[in-house]
Amino acid sequence: MIKRFDKMLIDLPRPSYADPNAASAVQELLGGEFGEMSTLNNYMFQSFNFREKKKFKPFYDLVSSITAEEFGHVQLVANTVNLMLEGATFPADPDATPLRTGVDKRNTDHFIANAQTSRPQDAMGRPWNGTYVFNSGNLVLDLLHNFFLECGARTHKMRVYEMTDNPVAREMIGYLLVRGGVHVVAYAKALKVITGVDMTKMLPVPDLENKRFDTARKFEAQGIHRRLYTWSDTDYRGIAHIWKGTHPEDGQPLEVIEGMPQGAPVPDFSGLPQQFAPGISQEDFLEIGKKLQREAGL
Amino acid sequence: MIKRFDKMLIDLPRPSYADPNAASAVQELLGGEFGEMSTLNNYMFQSFNFREKKKFKPFYDLVSSITAEEFGHVQLVANTVNLMLEGATFPADPDATPLRTGVDKRNTDHFIANAQTSRPQDAMGRPWNGTYVFNSGNLVLDLLHNFFLECGARTHKMRVYEMTDNPVAREMIGYLLVRGGVHVVAYAKALKVITGVDMTKMLPVPDLENKRFDTARKFEAQGIHRRLYTWSDTDYRGIAHIWKGTHPEDGQPLEVIEGMPQGAPVPDFSGLPQQFAPGISQEDFLEIGKKLQREAGL
Amino acid sequence: MIKRFDKMLIDLPRPSYADPNAASAVQELLGGEFGEMSTLNNYMFQSFNFREKKKFKPFYDLVSSITAEEFGHVQLVANTVNLMLEGATFPADPDATPLRTGVDKRNTDHFIANAQTSRPQDAMGRPWNGTYVFNSGNLVLDLLHNFFLECGARTHKMRVYEMTDNPVAREMIGYLLVRGGVHVVAYAKALKVITGVDMTKMLPVPDLENKRFDTARKFEAQGIHRRLYTWSDTDYRGIAHIWKGTHPEDGQPLEVIEGMPQGAPVPDFSGLPQQFAPGISQEDFLEIGKKLQREAGL
Amino acid sequence: MIKRFDKMLIDLPRPSYADPNAASAVQELLGGEFGEMSTLNNYMFQSFNFREKKKFKPFYDLVSSITAEEFGHVQLVANTVNLMLEGATFPADPDATPLRTGVDKRNTDHFIANAQTSRPQDAMGRPWNGTYVFNSGNLVLDLLHNFFLECGARTHKMRVYEMTDNPVAREMIGYLLVRGGVHVVAYAKALKVITGVDMTKMLPVPDLENKRFDTARKFEAQGIHRRLYTWSDTDYRGIAHIWKGTHPEDGQPLEVIEGMPQGAPVPDFSGLPQQFAPGISQEDFLEIGKKLQREAGL
Amino acid sequence: MIKRFDKMLIDLPRPSYADPNAASAVQELLGGEFGEMSTLNNYMFQSFNFREKKKFKPFYDLVSSITAEEFGHVQLVANTVNLMLEGATFPADPDATPLRTGVDKRNTDHFIANAQTSRPQDAMGRPWNGTYVFNSGNLVLDLLHNFFLECGARTHKMRVYEMTDNPVAREMIGYLLVRGGVHVVAYAKALKVITGVDMTKMLPVPDLENKRFDTARKFEAQGIHRRLYTWSDTDYRGIAHIWKGTHPEDGQPLEVIEGMPQGAPVPDFSGLPQQFAPGISQEDFLEIGKKLQREAGL
Amino acid sequence: MIKRFDKMLIDLPRPSYADPNAASAVQELLGGEFGEMSTLNNYMFQSFNFREKKKFKPFYDLVSSITAEEFGHVQLVANTVNLMLEGATFPADPDATPLRTGVDKRNTDHFIANAQTSRPQDAMGRPWNGTYVFNSGNLVLDLLHNFFLECGARTHKMRVYEMTDNPVAREMIGYLLVRGGVHVVAYAKALKVITGVDMTKMLPVPDLENKRFDTARKFEAQGIHRRLYTWSDTDYRGIAHIWKGTHPEDGQPLEVIEGMPQGAPVPDFSGLPQQFAPGISQEDFLEIGKKLQREAGL
Repeated sequence: MIKRFDKMLIDLPRPSYADPNAASAVQELLGGEFGEMSTLNNYMFQSFNFREKKKFKPFYDLVSSITAEEFGHVQLVANTVNLMLEGATFPADPDATPLRTGVDKRNTDHFIANAQTSRPQDAMGRPWNGTYVFNSGNLVLDLLHNFFLECGARTHKMRVYEMTDNPVAREMIGYLLVRGGVHVVAYAKALKVITGVDMTKMLPVPDLENKRFDTARKFEAQGIHRRLYTWSDTDYRGIAHIWKGTHPEDGQPLEVIEGMPQGAPVPDFSGLPQQFAPGISQEDFLEIGKKLQREAGL
Repeated sequence: MIKRFDKMLIDLPRPSYADPNAASAVQELLGGEFGEMSTLNNYMFQSFNFREKKKFKPFYDLVSSITAEEFGHVQLVANTVNLMLEGATFPADPDATPLRTGVDKRNTDHFIANAQTSRPQDAMGRPWNGTYVFNSGNLVLDLLHNFFLECGARTHKMRVYEMTDNPVAREMIGYLLVRGGVHVVAYAKALKVITGVDMTKMLPVPDLENKRFDTARKFEAQGIHRRLYTWSDTDYRGIAHIWKGTHPEDGQPLEVIEGMPQGAPVPDFSGLPQQFAPGISQEDFLEIGKKLQREAGL
Repeated sequence: MIKRFDKMLIDLPRPSYADPNAASAVQELLGGEFGEMSTLNNYMFQSFNFREKKKFKPFYDLVSSITAEEFGHVQLVANTVNLMLEGATFPADPDATPLRTGVDKRNTDHFIANAQTSRPQDAMGRPWNGTYVFNSGNLVLDLLHNFFLECGARTHKMRVYEMTDNPVAREMIGYLLVRGGVHVVAYAKALKVITGVDMTKMLPVPDLENKRFDTARKFEAQGIHRRLYTWSDTDYRGIAHIWKGTHPEDGQPLEVIEGMPQGAPVPDFSGLPQQFAPGISQEDFLEIGKKLQREAGL
Repeated sequence: MIKRFDKMLIDLPRPSYADPNAASAVQELLGGEFGEMSTLNNYMFQSFNFREKKKFKPFYDLVSSITAEEFGHVQLVANTVNLMLEGATFPADPDATPLRTGVDKRNTDHFIANAQTSRPQDAMGRPWNGTYVFNSGNLVLDLLHNFFLECGARTHKMRVYEMTDNPVAREMIGYLLVRGGVHVVAYAKALKVITGVDMTKMLPVPDLENKRFDTARKFEAQGIHRRLYTWSDTDYRGIAHIWKGTHPEDGQPLEVIEGMPQGAPVPDFSGLPQQFAPGISQEDFLEIGKKLQREAGL
Repeated sequence: MIKRFDKMLIDLPRPSYADPNAASAVQELLGGEFGEMSTLNNYMFQSFNFREKKKFKPFYDLVSSITAEEFGHVQLVANTVNLMLEGATFPADPDATPLRTGVDKRNTDHFIANAQTSRPQDAMGRPWNGTYVFNSGNLVLDLLHNFFLECGARTHKMRVYEMTDNPVAREMIGYLLVRGGVHVVAYAKALKVITGVDMTKMLPVPDLENKRFDTARKFEAQGIHRRLYTWSDTDYRGIAHIWKGTHPEDGQPLEVIEGMPQGAPVPDFSGLPQQFAPGISQEDFLEIGKKLQREAGL
Repeated sequence: MIKRFDKMLIDLPRPSYADPNAASAVQELLGGEFGEMSTLNNYMFQSFNFREKKKFKPFYDLVSSITAEEFGHVQLVANTVNLMLEGATFPADPDATPLRTGVDKRNTDHFIANAQTSRPQDAMGRPWNGTYVFNSGNLVLDLLHNFFLECGARTHKMRVYEMTDNPVAREMIGYLLVRGGVHVVAYAKALKVITGVDMTKMLPVPDLENKRFDTARKFEAQGIHRRLYTWSDTDYRGIAHIWKGTHPEDGQPLEVIEGMPQGAPVPDFSGLPQQFAPGISQEDFLEIGKKLQREAGL
């Protein structure tokens, strides 16, 4: 079970221009095989299906709590897409062709289906699907998978960063490179406890440090790469048996934090009459307001 | 952002027999087009992508908070599948063919891929996919979709109930019929506020009351069909502008509850050596324990 | 454009027993790669997209008119599935598990999604999809494809016939073997006109005559294998330039018939309260009747 | 069963320029989840699978007859795509790269697979598939689905209209907005008869009238938004029990018309030697003509 | 480029009974995400796409040569499926329902589409597809993937072994467990050379040695687990830089062998007239033979 | 079983410019329904599953040996894609956006997933899948399919040739048109032996000779269109019973050649630091070299 909070992990800048093709590329990080939908659902199913939760509590706590963080990652990438699509069309009568931009862009779904917002699909428009979830039940194999998945996700993030200098995309990626890096190390440490093999020694994969990415540096400077959260008021403290010692890259002490980060406000998006979204006229809106008040007054 | 709690919505009975084909049917309620993965992801994306969150706060709060409940529904159905698969195989040497049951069952993934646990796919083994998410951005159309989706989900639950008298499946379905019924009414009421059309008058769809299902009755008796939760410590209270008045079926007062239900313990599943899940021997386990302690002692 | 008539190509027997797994196999002939959805949509798209309709009128008329026949084939197979699923469940309260049969059957969609009726998918539950349509625009290649498609469809029909002696399935297959055979010959003759190559000499593919199938014999005896219909009151008479001469197997004269066959009544299916289909109670039904009359009386 | 007529619903203008990317967007209205392939196949399967056809004849007649109209809609959108692709390439030797335009366009299938014609897929190249067909057998739920489907289809049409001012696309969309509007109202009225809930009061969804679209106005002026056809010489007259009273938007009387509209000629497309479509040389063509005559002379 | 030899890696026993459901399970090892089609195509594409082949020759040689072995693995599993389906039907007239067995079996494709032979799909009938190929171009990540893939493939093989005691299936799996084990070690050693991390220390994954599987023991006794082949007359000798030292499980010396194993004869399958496969009558066969001779005599 | 050789069928030119959108189009010839992955896998499965290999040895030898050639075709197209993507990005720090080209190109997988190399998918990014394999077991039908498949593949190659004058693409297509033409004739001849129908008389399909393509002419001049290889040192000589007589287009004698063509060197691709491919620094590389030497010295 979860509680939800109307917050987002970090503030994202409001863009000064629409960037639909870059938004289309960012979809890969949301709904691609190595996107956040995949990390969320892998860990969610692995935690539901975990065998011997008590006996292997630190490991159960690890995949359970990271699940919660991944919800926030999906949210962050989705909002990035949304912000990058702001301003791609203009309000006007249908006959003025206000969505004309969409016709030559890479992702027509953004214009025809979704009113310039994100979708659970990748950069080529292929829907995210359940075959992207791996859950063998074998703990070593599942952790090995997760380690690989996070390295793959890191690679894709690095490349999308290199594809666009859009400031919203880069802010998001800088942050997620740091947080993804935490998960890479966490799964490596979990594997070390069980197997004795220290996979942190092959990090980073690919072999380029986060600090080589402009927007990642400030998050590392804040120590965000050293923290693992329980994402709970009461549970998942067993991660402290895994997340301890020092960070393999800078040797600084690792830290478990109960609960979740403070977060930032969720962006709001203005209505787009040309997209009929939300599609309620000013007078209808006032009428709805009165109705809600009247009924509240009963 | 979310916080996670190591609880499940209700207690599920431990089954006294394995029921793999019924577990396969229950997969429809998890990863089918009208399963809980669909409700979770529809509302999650609709909330991320919502335009004019402030202006239409009650509606935003509605899809946002129900998202959180749906996480719990996915968890509940996944655990139902897991419990129904308990005991389907026996511990033995590979040469004794301990997974022999699997060869004639409807869902071989349960045996080959997942160590007798749930997967994001439907009763025919088709993976859940992102085309099941609808999010036009038009508020009336999205609410209409959600109303339809919940009616469809209710239909599938009713039919799976009729397909199996497995006690775990029925307990889960009884509860979800009641909670799904709440969501049907909530979306109908939201539509009424905006359009004036009272769709509660066509309820229930299909035309058979929840109380006709044995395991649903006790939950209705507890008033669970009258409550909508905010699923948050701090947010989403705007749902009270929509969830008010009386229930269309029994005329009892509706109730908004801050936070989430109390919940029940998450089931644990014993290790299955024949599935190599979690696949760690007793002595390795002891060794891991010592290692964790030693390192904790540093 | 089309006109529709409330008829079906032939009478199908009412079955005396439910046959869900055989119905599942018959789905291959409906929504499989070589099923009737494929023939319908291949010819439909080829006719819409045909280049030089006037210059190559006999060929355009051929794919256009056969399209119309294929609609009737889809209808016939769909109704076969429906009839074979009659009686698979029994009316009872949900707690009596009236759909219990479904849990061990091959196609749970028939029970959970469709109220014991047909779906556009194959015998393994894979949905029919648009990649099954071939339309290169090159006339020789498209005709060659159609010839191959019909031979493949014939093969699948023959094998499903051999899998089940269900009388509904066999009646349908017997008829469609004969009609499919007509299309094989028609495409072969079209190819001969253009290329000079006489592919009728390799028929039948597979090398077993229709008369070896009990339920096909009577349709051949009626001469149905010699007739090609225009499926129109006014158009597509150009097929007579292709469909002429004698049948390659029995040497009897070929015949073009304007319009369509006489047909038989469409089967009706009684309501299944346990499936909530159509899900309207007797009293609601009477009420609806009155309402319709009252409003008609205005 | 159907009869086919060599006509199209309306005349489409011959375009003066090729518009491949806009044609790609129009594919969404053909093979997308909310495209005409979906409406055609939903109603086709619902009519084949209808339970209690006699008892609920007006409803059966409704989905049956609209099926026939949807065939014409698929035809109209397919031809729109075809016309928009006219002139996108030029006749020349292969070494002159006559299809060069295709390499940078959004839909390479139009150039590699289909000789500049339509395909059963959406604007992102995803094939139409059978999961887009909903048919629960529950009459209220199926009608609710159809109402939702038509509203979704309307939304997509409105947005594609806003994406391109291509005159062929706009003529087609203007007409289909009006006809789709008829279907929205028809399903709303059907639901009202059964449930008493008047969903016409939430129309139009999205909240922008058809008359706001330039090419829709003339069709409304002709009263086309008030007419429902039986699409049959002999059947489906029961729709008159549903299609009666006045139109919810302009209060004008509704009208049932037996048969189908008059229609317009089907466009022909000239051969494209650079696409090998139909790929028959002038001399081969003459030879074929002689052959046909000779054989006719026998 | 490759040369092909009419041999198979090992002799498979002729089964004494048909075993269609077990054959269906074995399909997972052929066309599942972790089946041999996946290993073949992963390494094939990785070798085609390898950057810096000369600089990193041992690694290029490794994926290139294992590609060739995987062709043999696909062949071996395909033949296993074929042998397990022998005798599932009987020769008879169509009216005698000779394929009746197929109607209740898990994989109807084996009966309707493929004449009792293998297909590129998994145990649930989902087609193998290209998303199962991973090829990031980053050498560490690709090797890590391959290590994970082989461990996953091993897990699936172990479980299918436990599902059926079919002697053909077990002979094949015993052999492939040993050969797959070689590939696991090879990729671990390759990773060690580059990163210094010794992943052989976590082997075997899952933690059950091959010698615990009856049919694997004899292949280990032959030393097959210590050999890596170049699968070439002239190339790929660079694998010797990686495949050297001792085996991590039994400490015996590793061995590189030029060329390929000796192999065994390819099984032949008798014709199935009831499947029309190959579908040529005895007299047609004789006629073909004469024709071939006559023409050879020219 | 196969042996592999580090060669490619022909030399491909090094391109002087990057051509990502043309590379995307070429993907159709690799992973499209009519691409080389399809020919490879069709013949591979048909050869594994062949019934009566001895009785129908020439036909078995035909599909078996062509399988081997198709491996080389897949390799050739994959390398073409790789070469066309060379230079599409530039080495630079991530903040310099070195992959910026990718954001507006048709295939973002080439940039995000694959480090500018080929993938098993088509020109629209749809993954190759197992439904593209046809194998009915009926020899006539399978040969007819193969004949059709090769004609379809030829059509797609001709159109991609016409879409781009990229010299790498054209060299590859010129060669494959010739070799594909050989396979078309081979299957036609095989069909003639069995059925007596001479399908070579409808060739070429489409009706444009290979010599009309600039880069095909030189290969025809070398007589490559007259040769069929056994692709084996020891087997598949039975193809000589089919591949004999004269070529239907130029009347020159056909020739069976034992073994395979001489081939050309496989291209190497330089490392792309901006893609982290292979992602190993110069100093790490030297370190690896030393390690390999040291260990070799043991």
